[in-house]
Amino acid sequence: MTQTTLKIQNSPPPIQLFITGGTIDKQYQETSGELIFPNSHLPIMLQEANVTLAIETTVLMQKDSLEITDEDREKIYQACIDTPQQKIVITHGTDTMVNTALTLHQYEALQHKTIVLTGAMRPFMLGHSDANFNLGTALMAVQLAQPGVYIAMNGQLFSAHQVQKNRQLGLFTEL
Amino acid sequence: MTQTTLKIQNSPPPIQLFITGGTIDKQYQETSGELIFPNSHLPIMLQEANVTLAIETTVLMQKDSLEITDEDREKIYQACIDTPQQKIVITHGTDTMVNTALTLHQYEALQHKTIVLTGAMRPFMLGHSDANFNLGTALMAVQLAQPGVYIAMNGQLFSAHQVQKNRQLGLFTEL
Amino acid sequence: MTQTTLKIQNSPPPIQLFITGGTIDKQYQETSGELIFPNSHLPIMLQEANVTLAIETTVLMQKDSLEITDEDREKIYQACIDTPQQKIVITHGTDTMVNTALTLHQYEALQHKTIVLTGAMRPFMLGHSDANFNLGTALMAVQLAQPGVYIAMNGQLFSAHQVQKNRQLGLFTEL
Amino acid sequence: MTQTTLKIQNSPPPIQLFITGGTIDKQYQETSGELIFPNSHLPIMLQEANVTLAIETTVLMQKDSLEITDEDREKIYQACIDTPQQKIVITHGTDTMVNTALTLHQYEALQHKTIVLTGAMRPFMLGHSDANFNLGTALMAVQLAQPGVYIAMNGQLFSAHQVQKNRQLGLFTEL
Repeated sequence: MTQTTLKIQNSPPPIQLFITGGTIDKQYQETSGELIFPNSHLPIMLQEANVTLAIETTVLMQKDSLEITDEDREKIYQACIDTPQQKIVITHGTDTMVNTALTLHQYEALQHKTIVLTGAMRPFMLGHSDANFNLGTALMAVQLAQPGVYIAMNGQLFSAHQVQKNRQLGLFTEL
Repeated sequence: MTQTTLKIQNSPPPIQLFITGGTIDKQYQETSGELIFPNSHLPIMLQEANVTLAIETTVLMQKDSLEITDEDREKIYQACIDTPQQKIVITHGTDTMVNTALTLHQYEALQHKTIVLTGAMRPFMLGHSDANFNLGTALMAVQLAQPGVYIAMNGQLFSAHQVQKNRQLGLFTEL
Repeated sequence: MTQTTLKIQNSPPPIQLFITGGTIDKQYQETSGELIFPNSHLPIMLQEANVTLAIETTVLMQKDSLEITDEDREKIYQACIDTPQQKIVITHGTDTMVNTALTLHQYEALQHKTIVLTGAMRPFMLGHSDANFNLGTALMAVQLAQPGVYIAMNGQLFSAHQVQKNRQLGLFTEL
Repeated sequence: MTQTTLKIQNSPPPIQLFITGGTIDKQYQETSGELIFPNSHLPIMLQEANVTLAIETTVLMQKDSLEITDEDREKIYQACIDTPQQKIVITHGTDTMVNTALTLHQYEALQHKTIVLTGAMRPFMLGHSDANFNLGTALMAVQLAQPGVYIAMNGQLFSAHQVQKNRQLGLFTEL
């Protein structure tokens, strides 16, 4: 292990966090009884986790992933290109998370970046959620994994082209 | 990327989770107004996180880390030796987490294993805790990091011999 | 103050708790992303509140109050008649809580009983809820108020025929 | 029931809420691992409960009730005298809640006021607490009970001179 490696390990490079919505960021609205998108809760999640990483947080959109369009995916791709960071975490709804991961995976221009998508099956704001855990796995994976596009869910790191969501079980499994 | 690599990524090897106590597992006792150790909450944490990894959970002790003795560290070391698993996560109080990590780090017999210690500054059971996030980072790190002894706290992965706890700030920083 | 009054105060008479559903008892279902009715959470609410009252809990139905029919209201009325208890608390969805209260209010056969309806704007299981507070107000009101049909919401006790729900604000106000 | 009575019921008179500390208001401090008194959480509790009562909140002190002195009780008494309100709720630690209630009970000058003490066995900020429920019972009791000094705990309303705390069980019972 060289001194260079050690330095990288102890002074982690900055991470770009892109927020696109999804269950992780939903909140219950009392008057309507519906789940809506208020301001993102990612900043408070990072604060409660006492995270000392250098993270730049950007809200690209706040959408249920069933409503993410091809245009939205183009916008996500462009943001990944535009950011100077090599390490990118994207919060995203789980229903079409694989679609967005595959879209990013196909672009050669992103092949030198490490991109990890994550989300949650239960909103952070409703308690007893997988949100904090999943965010932890994604932020660690983006620091340690080789360049590529991944999904971090259920404690595992899946390559974009080798994963599917099992809707009945609410779990991600390898293809 | 070879088929072998892919197989490793998608069928993660089993992980041994050793529980030693620490703030992460404390609970408020109503009658005494004190923080005590009931049964470990790690199983419910893994369940809420929808974790599909193969994890064997073993309670070695339930102690405040200020009360962890050399004998306890010997017991933790022996457990790491005895488990057939190569990937080990240890939950531990934060005050002497570095001491235990350094103890494990010095043993040559463990050099081929990946061992990640983690814990929390606020008990899981009190809500608004860093516990779930930290567990996520530890479980991902143990899958991706090279063999060695590490501490996963504050979103970062520290080598055992290059980290200290800043008690005033309640944060881990590089040495 | 007579000895008789003191005895009543210190040995509270048994209370019948009827559960009919409503937001107070909803839970988020991870796989569908919808709010459903699992088993009632009233027993765990009473347990967390360390309640030592003699309370008999009966689930009459588990419905969103917009789906409560005239037949359901007849069933609630009949249950209030059939119970030997004079003090009755009913958990109910807020949208038609006034309708059910008015239905019960019009029956002469219930005029000697104290009936308090309550519910919540945010499910108990989602945290940060008004559920526990409202249950507390209802259980205290049913012990202290004169016979009649009431709604306990927003910290106030309203007579059934003098209250309306303001849907825009999500609050109950006097007529 | 006269029109006057109805008016009182629907336009509840203002309530004075005195805060003296106690478990209900404690919070876990991450760096020390101890329970401390930050700013009172009563305002956020009232907000989450959607309370529409006219409540004036005043912090008299923030103390563990084992540290409440005779001088503190004199201060609480004086505050009850000085407030123009007839209806007073006091949050207080449970260990000496009975002592403070008895102190207030013996003053003739307070006999025309309704004073309800309450607290919690588990801090509001730690979740799964009895705090919200207890506050609900106290605020309803102060509106409905005859003048006198009471303790609202465990869902019951106890007269000051007829209640004791069972420390082993963590429950209030009649004398």
